[in-house]
Amino acid sequence: MNWLLPEHIADALPAEAARIESMRRRLLDLFRVHGYELVLPPLLEHLESLLTGSGQDLRLRTFKLVDQLSGRTLGVRADMTPQVARIDAHLLNRQGVTRLCYCDSVLHTLPAALGASREPIQLGAELYGHAGVAADREVIRLMAATLAAAEVSAACIDLGHVAVFRALAAAAGVDGELEATLLFLLQGKDLPGLADTCRCLDEPWRSALLVLPELYGGVDILARAGRELPPLPGIVTALATLQELQASLPDLPLSFDLADLRGYHYHNGVVFAAYCPGYSTAIARGGRYDGVGSVFGRARPATGFSLDLRELARLRASSPQPGAILAPCAVAGSTLAQAIAALRAGGAVVVELLPGENGSEGPACDRRLVEHDGQWLLANIDGDGSF
Amino acid sequence: MNWLLPEHIADALPAEAARIESMRRRLLDLFRVHGYELVLPPLLEHLESLLTGSGQDLRLRTFKLVDQLSGRTLGVRADMTPQVARIDAHLLNRQGVTRLCYCDSVLHTLPAALGASREPIQLGAELYGHAGVAADREVIRLMAATLAAAEVSAACIDLGHVAVFRALAAAAGVDGELEATLLFLLQGKDLPGLADTCRCLDEPWRSALLVLPELYGGVDILARAGRELPPLPGIVTALATLQELQASLPDLPLSFDLADLRGYHYHNGVVFAAYCPGYSTAIARGGRYDGVGSVFGRARPATGFSLDLRELARLRASSPQPGAILAPCAVAGSTLAQAIAALRAGGAVVVELLPGENGSEGPACDRRLVEHDGQWLLANIDGDGSF
Repeated sequence: MNWLLPEHIADALPAEAARIESMRRRLLDLFRVHGYELVLPPLLEHLESLLTGSGQDLRLRTFKLVDQLSGRTLGVRADMTPQVARIDAHLLNRQGVTRLCYCDSVLHTLPAALGASREPIQLGAELYGHAGVAADREVIRLMAATLAAAEVSAACIDLGHVAVFRALAAAAGVDGELEATLLFLLQGKDLPGLADTCRCLDEPWRSALLVLPELYGGVDILARAGRELPPLPGIVTALATLQELQASLPDLPLSFDLADLRGYHYHNGVVFAAYCPGYSTAIARGGRYDGVGSVFGRARPATGFSLDLRELARLRASSPQPGAILAPCAVAGSTLAQAIAALRAGGAVVVELLPGENGSEGPACDRRLVEHDGQWLLANIDGDGSF
Repeated sequence: MNWLLPEHIADALPAEAARIESMRRRLLDLFRVHGYELVLPPLLEHLESLLTGSGQDLRLRTFKLVDQLSGRTLGVRADMTPQVARIDAHLLNRQGVTRLCYCDSVLHTLPAALGASREPIQLGAELYGHAGVAADREVIRLMAATLAAAEVSAACIDLGHVAVFRALAAAAGVDGELEATLLFLLQGKDLPGLADTCRCLDEPWRSALLVLPELYGGVDILARAGRELPPLPGIVTALATLQELQASLPDLPLSFDLADLRGYHYHNGVVFAAYCPGYSTAIARGGRYDGVGSVFGRARPATGFSLDLRELARLRASSPQPGAILAPCAVAGSTLAQAIAALRAGGAVVVELLPGENGSEGPACDRRLVEHDGQWLLANIDGDGSF
């Protein structure tokens, strides 16, 4: 049973691999024309670099290795965003706005969700050096364009803001451990648990935390939040930011959820998640994570999004490929070799049959090269495609 | 110093990443038009699957991990060829010829050579199900075409045959440990050590093993080998195969080396390595490894080659990119937004400036969008590209 793969690990066979590759190119091209430059961070880094600014969750999800060259503990990246923040902070060292993108495999010790792969292909774009809402708007717009380019239109883009919860927790004097518990209960939408845990808190913070899970829906929610939440500076600013995004993105299907904090490891501002038909969790997710680069020597404003290309490609049926061409085995320099080379240069797939090879079990062939009066011509293949 | 990466591990920053990405696409397209189908095997497998048929060398070079889901030992792939053999043997299960290709990162615990990366990007093509010399010819030709497409022409393609040494060792009655020692000495071209170790062997095997390191050069070497080596069936067949390849590949710069066995882990037939100016070791390498899939339930003839895309891309200077375009920040639906979308749809890179952003520190911009009589037009940028 040597061929059995570990659980939640799979090969992508030709049909799926072609779909992933074609989508990869289309989306990286989209990032490129928007001015986002590709970077390739390594699979392995020192563990502390990979986990910078992130929570316990990412730590548990990261595979650890010992480096034979240094004796230090290495991690296999479980998330590329901190790597790209390191590149911005230390390697590029630009003063102005920096736009970067990436697409590569990450590994998880445990699947992030039921049925999820332990080897997602993380594709994303990050924008550094701009603290304004215009940067978040650009990234949200790019996320929507990415899904549209993948022909998976976002049915809904949920906006939230981490500062709303943080401001309430700080005002209520909640310490690290209790804050983590409250966050966990909010993430799980565990209302009875939340009510129980909030019992020790003072008003108006208790009521405010309890009303948070109800604050989801259309833009009206922002007005209701303004009325029902205490006017802490962090909350007022957060609501104004969300209002501004809503006003400047009139063409996107935005909704709001002030308690949705699932899956955000190091985010500290606006957060956003795109949902689409036929997929139960967010298909793409991002937000602002200002200052994460400070451990690398430079605290920069940062916002971005990412998605799992495997999942995105799975949502799309394969587009029909043009049929391939069968050809006899050619001798170097022959007219047949020239005909095959010309077809291939034009992008056609030509399978050159080896002695004893009768037809293609690989690419589906609908034509073949046949000789006619000394010329090599294309003829349609009937039936099973054998030569 | 959180930003320091482990030794022999590096980021690819925008210029290098763009070069790698463009070469990746070009070479995968080349494989595609030759009928090779892309597959994406996983980064992680059960250790024994990854090491099938390979020697101690690959075992030492493979990072090991414990699977939290099963408690079993996993390996991070150090070589994709055994993975692709598994896919051919078990997953595709085709009877005829199967052509597969791949391009992805592998990890090595220790660098394979002085100055080598511990995270090569292995790009390769494999042909299964055909035992004839025509299959080796196709793969050698594809290897040469790959280098030509990368604009790195092969100065020399060295052919060898593992069966020559194996037949001599078997005839001399050499056991496993001594065979490994002889192979090690031959690989290191350690002639005094070889002479010493061969002292215990009988003639004619001793002389034949000692003459092996001299058998390199042009096609004449094959005739000399025929005269000076004992006519063991394995040797006669191997020399005939090499002779046939030489005759059918008149346009390639072939040479022969009957003792070059470096870097071959599971190969058991013809082997080949391409060398190019400015690069001291082989830039691409491959050969026949029949039957490796037998541990996965099917012993199939197999031949293929691979290379490190990072190294290949490093040999090429960046081709000049068309300049990007600066544009003011556009409001959704405006004529400016439409002008930007049209330029991007045509493949141009347009950096939309955020409030306060003065110019691009990322993609180099040589034009900008300016309004003239209600129309958005392109104007050249003089000087530093600021808007």
